[in-house]
Amino acid sequence: MSHTLSDRALIPFVSVENMMQLILDISAEEAMAQIADYLEEDFRRWPLFDKTPRVASHSKEGVIELMPTSDGIDYGFKYVNGHPKNMKEGLQTVTAFGLLASVDTGYPVLLTEMTILTALRTAATSAVATKYLAPKGAITMAMIGNGAQSEFQAIALRRICGITTVRLYDSDPEATTKCACNLAQSGLEVIPCQTAEEAIMGAQIITTCTADKQNATVLSDNMVGAGVHINGIGGDCPGKTELHRDILTRSDVFVEYPPQTRIEGEIQQMDEGFPVTELWKVMTGEANGRTSEKQITLFDGVGFAIEDFSALRWLRDQLETSGRFDKLDMIADPDDPRDLYGMLQRAQVRRAAE
Amino acid sequence: MSHTLSDRALIPFVSVENMMQLILDISAEEAMAQIADYLEEDFRRWPLFDKTPRVASHSKEGVIELMPTSDGIDYGFKYVNGHPKNMKEGLQTVTAFGLLASVDTGYPVLLTEMTILTALRTAATSAVATKYLAPKGAITMAMIGNGAQSEFQAIALRRICGITTVRLYDSDPEATTKCACNLAQSGLEVIPCQTAEEAIMGAQIITTCTADKQNATVLSDNMVGAGVHINGIGGDCPGKTELHRDILTRSDVFVEYPPQTRIEGEIQQMDEGFPVTELWKVMTGEANGRTSEKQITLFDGVGFAIEDFSALRWLRDQLETSGRFDKLDMIADPDDPRDLYGMLQRAQVRRAAE
Repeated sequence: MSHTLSDRALIPFVSVENMMQLILDISAEEAMAQIADYLEEDFRRWPLFDKTPRVASHSKEGVIELMPTSDGIDYGFKYVNGHPKNMKEGLQTVTAFGLLASVDTGYPVLLTEMTILTALRTAATSAVATKYLAPKGAITMAMIGNGAQSEFQAIALRRICGITTVRLYDSDPEATTKCACNLAQSGLEVIPCQTAEEAIMGAQIITTCTADKQNATVLSDNMVGAGVHINGIGGDCPGKTELHRDILTRSDVFVEYPPQTRIEGEIQQMDEGFPVTELWKVMTGEANGRTSEKQITLFDGVGFAIEDFSALRWLRDQLETSGRFDKLDMIADPDDPRDLYGMLQRAQVRRAAE
Repeated sequence: MSHTLSDRALIPFVSVENMMQLILDISAEEAMAQIADYLEEDFRRWPLFDKTPRVASHSKEGVIELMPTSDGIDYGFKYVNGHPKNMKEGLQTVTAFGLLASVDTGYPVLLTEMTILTALRTAATSAVATKYLAPKGAITMAMIGNGAQSEFQAIALRRICGITTVRLYDSDPEATTKCACNLAQSGLEVIPCQTAEEAIMGAQIITTCTADKQNATVLSDNMVGAGVHINGIGGDCPGKTELHRDILTRSDVFVEYPPQTRIEGEIQQMDEGFPVTELWKVMTGEANGRTSEKQITLFDGVGFAIEDFSALRWLRDQLETSGRFDKLDMIADPDDPRDLYGMLQRAQVRRAAE
């Protein structure tokens, strides 16, 4: 590189490879436990964030979204797509990258892959919600949908909520086999099941995370008994839900950001006035979480920008100790900020001299 | 890099250095002429674009914005900040980067620095507007504000509109000296001036591009005679204008995207119903541009996402022939898209074996 660059013009970049190595350095469960701490910290100061529903560009084949937020010190956004048909072509349904910037200067301070990081923060968010809402002594989780997110959910709930057993079900038995195999060394008792009904037997926690873009009924009303906690994770865009609406009427529903969840979450099936509780208020004590053993609690999780922000903050704080990043020459850095054209001319002079 | 990556998982990245070399390969004026062709092509199909006003996060010190758009085939967005106080700290007031993605898969296809690229597209846009709106035979431009954008404006207008003379004025004489020096080899006759009044003498085109974030009066009403074309470029956010409102009432005003310009442009000084013409309609013939020699035409340019999209498309089309890019490992690419966790585990096995 022939122009001299100041430190601020070089943006730390965490590639997929560096993200994997960083996570393996400390283990996925430790990473999720740390991210959960950042999540709790940010949920507790939820009102001070600049909040926008995601900025979505829809097409016939899928959606591309930008999810920005800011706490007044840092600014973060995530780029994420959702293309269900990608899998048939050997591509990821969801890919993502993210950026953190300084509000004071507007300069980026971190660019990172976020496909893996989103998987971690999504599972850490479920674990945090479960910690606040599940019945005391819950040790068995039914995991309905055994795709890319399932192992992360199981491991996060083991570490953060203390579950000991996970009961797996997927409409595709191969997915269940893959998930069970991946969790073999996790310390969890893993029980593959043939039906959703079998999977939820004895489970105090039910996590649904299926991928079809349609209104499905992964859980029907008669399957859900009193006292359970449900994490409904897979319903996350208009026209995509997993739970029968009768379950919603029997549950106390907890959400991230109501304006977004009413569009994207399970509660898109309900009227605009359907009562929900914001999860952050449970954490600060401003609202009740679980109040009885018989209550059904439902975390209708769709994924909100603040969770990505927490994950980006966590990653930024790992950079120095981990060293797992490259530096990208992404920001023009002329000697004189008013002299962008002169920077070009000087580069030409250098080139002619080479 | 120890995991095997498919081509689609590696995103072409154009660094600042590669952008400079790419431009020097063909010259800035040739780059702007080519970008102007892409701009015209996209202005002519304006109605088919997915349009959103920029998504802005304001703070006391500045603003960070995301500017997305799509034509249904490609999706592009730009990240851009505006921090007037940065210059005092030796940082750029405006920095930017951008991304182009495939609507079909949601996968990014290009990540690039956009500080330099934005300078090119901004000047190319002024030149295209001037080509359609300036009086016939206009060969002299007054350039009010001689900062980072000024040389690009002058060179683009020479190449695309055939101006032969540029008259420079800035409230800071050092900026004028810098600009005149940078333009010494440009083929333009360059005339540094002591006052704005002197600069506009004999100019058929007046381009204002000043940087203060405030309502200024760079041009007052009595300075603007009949028949000129004005490019008002520097007023581009709420509270930042350059022209006295009396000039606006005497002019026919042309804009990019009215909902954004009414917030950010010179016309923020006027009522919501103040008549404007969309520039794209002039290009397609759906609206009149200049209709008389005495008319004052004003292009109230604020910079719209579609212009960045045109510039990103141009750059993408240069990649193969220029070779001026790196490849970034930004998108996770597991063998089995449902097996993100397994990808991590296999990386651990490889690491243990090393």
